[in-house]
Amino acid sequence: MTTREDCLLRDKRDPLAPLRNDFLLPDDMIYLDGNSLGALPKASVTRAYQTVASEWGEGMIGSWNQAGWYEMPRRVGNRLAKLIGGGVDEVVVTDTISVNLFKLLAAALSHSTTLDPARTVIVSERGNFPSDLYIAQGLIELLGNRHTLRLIGSRDKLDAAITPDVAIVMLTQVDYRTGHMFDMQSVTAKVKASGALMIWDLAHSAGAVPVDLSASGADGAVGCTYKYLNAGPGAPGFIWVPKRNHLLFKQPISGWWGHRAPFEMNPQFEPEDGIGRFLCGTPPVVSLSLVDSALSVFEKTDMAALRTKSLALTELFIELVDARCSEYGVGLATTRNTACRGSQVSLTHPSAYAVMQALIHHKVVGDFREPNILRFGFTPLYVRFVDVWDAVDVLVHILASGEWKQPQFHQRNAVT
Amino acid sequence: MTTREDCLLRDKRDPLAPLRNDFLLPDDMIYLDGNSLGALPKASVTRAYQTVASEWGEGMIGSWNQAGWYEMPRRVGNRLAKLIGGGVDEVVVTDTISVNLFKLLAAALSHSTTLDPARTVIVSERGNFPSDLYIAQGLIELLGNRHTLRLIGSRDKLDAAITPDVAIVMLTQVDYRTGHMFDMQSVTAKVKASGALMIWDLAHSAGAVPVDLSASGADGAVGCTYKYLNAGPGAPGFIWVPKRNHLLFKQPISGWWGHRAPFEMNPQFEPEDGIGRFLCGTPPVVSLSLVDSALSVFEKTDMAALRTKSLALTELFIELVDARCSEYGVGLATTRNTACRGSQVSLTHPSAYAVMQALIHHKVVGDFREPNILRFGFTPLYVRFVDVWDAVDVLVHILASGEWKQPQFHQRNAVT
Repeated sequence: MTTREDCLLRDKRDPLAPLRNDFLLPDDMIYLDGNSLGALPKASVTRAYQTVASEWGEGMIGSWNQAGWYEMPRRVGNRLAKLIGGGVDEVVVTDTISVNLFKLLAAALSHSTTLDPARTVIVSERGNFPSDLYIAQGLIELLGNRHTLRLIGSRDKLDAAITPDVAIVMLTQVDYRTGHMFDMQSVTAKVKASGALMIWDLAHSAGAVPVDLSASGADGAVGCTYKYLNAGPGAPGFIWVPKRNHLLFKQPISGWWGHRAPFEMNPQFEPEDGIGRFLCGTPPVVSLSLVDSALSVFEKTDMAALRTKSLALTELFIELVDARCSEYGVGLATTRNTACRGSQVSLTHPSAYAVMQALIHHKVVGDFREPNILRFGFTPLYVRFVDVWDAVDVLVHILASGEWKQPQFHQRNAVT
Repeated sequence: MTTREDCLLRDKRDPLAPLRNDFLLPDDMIYLDGNSLGALPKASVTRAYQTVASEWGEGMIGSWNQAGWYEMPRRVGNRLAKLIGGGVDEVVVTDTISVNLFKLLAAALSHSTTLDPARTVIVSERGNFPSDLYIAQGLIELLGNRHTLRLIGSRDKLDAAITPDVAIVMLTQVDYRTGHMFDMQSVTAKVKASGALMIWDLAHSAGAVPVDLSASGADGAVGCTYKYLNAGPGAPGFIWVPKRNHLLFKQPISGWWGHRAPFEMNPQFEPEDGIGRFLCGTPPVVSLSLVDSALSVFEKTDMAALRTKSLALTELFIELVDARCSEYGVGLATTRNTACRGSQVSLTHPSAYAVMQALIHHKVVGDFREPNILRFGFTPLYVRFVDVWDAVDVLVHILASGEWKQPQFHQRNAVT
């Protein structure tokens, strides 16, 4: 079995190890929740000060031009595009992932494929992140229930669900609960061959695993920046639409920032030809500047190197859990097949909530997901091999001692 | 005519004068653009640092509970509600004003009044802020053009436009171009008597003029926080819906934060009963914290005192422009009737763009609006009477000397 000393050695030899210095991490905490809220890049502390005190406080209104605020949703979008295989001028950073999904689904319904009256079904997974399903439900109801949301219960049911009445397949590439990852290329190819449109949610993919949207042939994607991209709590989402779909997709939340000439103040909406048509209101400049600064660290490495370390971390975690925790009722919810694994590992335990609270009490921070999931995110930018060893060691202690049975660990918080 | 010395004396006697110390303002600038981007509250510099470095950087994911991030959209909404006459749990701070207007218009269309097939018209003004019209247009098109947007050309045409086929009247209380203000109570009463619903846009009202939404009997309102509320560039918008409409209004961008139990992760959307149903995605915490800190200064005074000073400032500006600028082709676009004036004064000039650029060159910052408007916002929290005098003095210099004719002042910026 891998020892703690082995882990220290692996950290010493890890070419990505210096990137941890780009983040502010509490000394006494092992942070394995970067899949929920990424850690704080040091550069973002100064960037927040610069945006607020200097650009806003000194430049005032003039900063829309002089500090480049106006271009930021597109400029930061182009920077982010490189991490997900998007083309130039195919990504904007704006709004939230839920609002962006609403825009994208509604826009896809203006495409000739989905205007075919025989195609009325939107396919997704019952286990998809609920907000994605809620957004589809809200849109379908708004449109008078002319469409149906068809939910598959497991990923092996997907092929059977893609029938000729399907307009759109909407999937999250990496499952938020299990970390199971779809093969984007093959799924997209299958969906496109069926004549439907393919929309991806990259919430647990962007910055976590290599993604090549352009090569996939998908029709659109959304994602968030506050998980593996480390842009801060509630940082804006992004939307990718390939150029071939720009003129075919008309999104309905048509605010002035999506207009071809917003400052002409014409009373009639005319969308911009390009990706700008997916913008809506005045962009959140302070938050956008933190997306911008958070992307810098990714430019010191590449997604292939990050993937290599990510899999090494999750493999190590699984190895140690197998060896040390199996006697305590712990199961593995994440696949052992590395090709289908995101950058997280989820365990099961009948009292998962309490076990996670006990872990957090010992400063090993993951999170709980209903009904019985202990979720651990492994961000290769700042998680060390020795962190993995120490985290499992604490987990073993909590399970072996029965410490998790203490009543304090069973009290529910607002956010779990 | 009022002299500069008179103005200095008025500042000395102004009970609101000390509030200017709560803001960071460049020494050499006269900032009359708080109606576009409010000035930076000093408290927001430390608050941004606290949210980023301490709450995010040290508290990490735990800050959703421990730092109260989870409750922030509602808590800050309740704080803001006091400035606009909203009740407790009737306001949330979320998304952008354009997205909120989409939610509110769409939600109003689920109300029994608007479900009446005889009511298919949405009334607004041709001169309304374009994004509001664009949002209505996008929604109408999404719903299959079953509704019509009826635009009046001037405010005296409103009565005639409120015919029995009107479902919703949607107006901006204070015109962004002229500063003309609707009487909210009487207009709402008229609209409600006609059987239609009334929706207000408070972009240029919140924090600028006294507003009493509850007393008005309106059905909903949206607004932004980056103008007179000083929450920073692109800070989130707000939405007010009175309790009596909560269960009647179902908004379609139904993301997980609007769910009655978001962390139960159920696949079926069920909206919260209260104002929370107007939330959607994960809230932008850093930006929200700056809305929160920006509201503190308003709790040192009240809207009546701010209104008194606001009118004194705009009256003074009009007096000085009348006396000193009329010979140079300057007209007044804002009403002389103080009861119908917001907290801004707009002038007209055939070369308004160049004149404004010349003013900005001399550090007198207002803005230009198509086609010929010089727009000046007077924020009583930080604008002094002597600023008004000095601004007019610079304007006279630019007009009298013809300095605005220099080519450099005619080059257009991205944002005007």
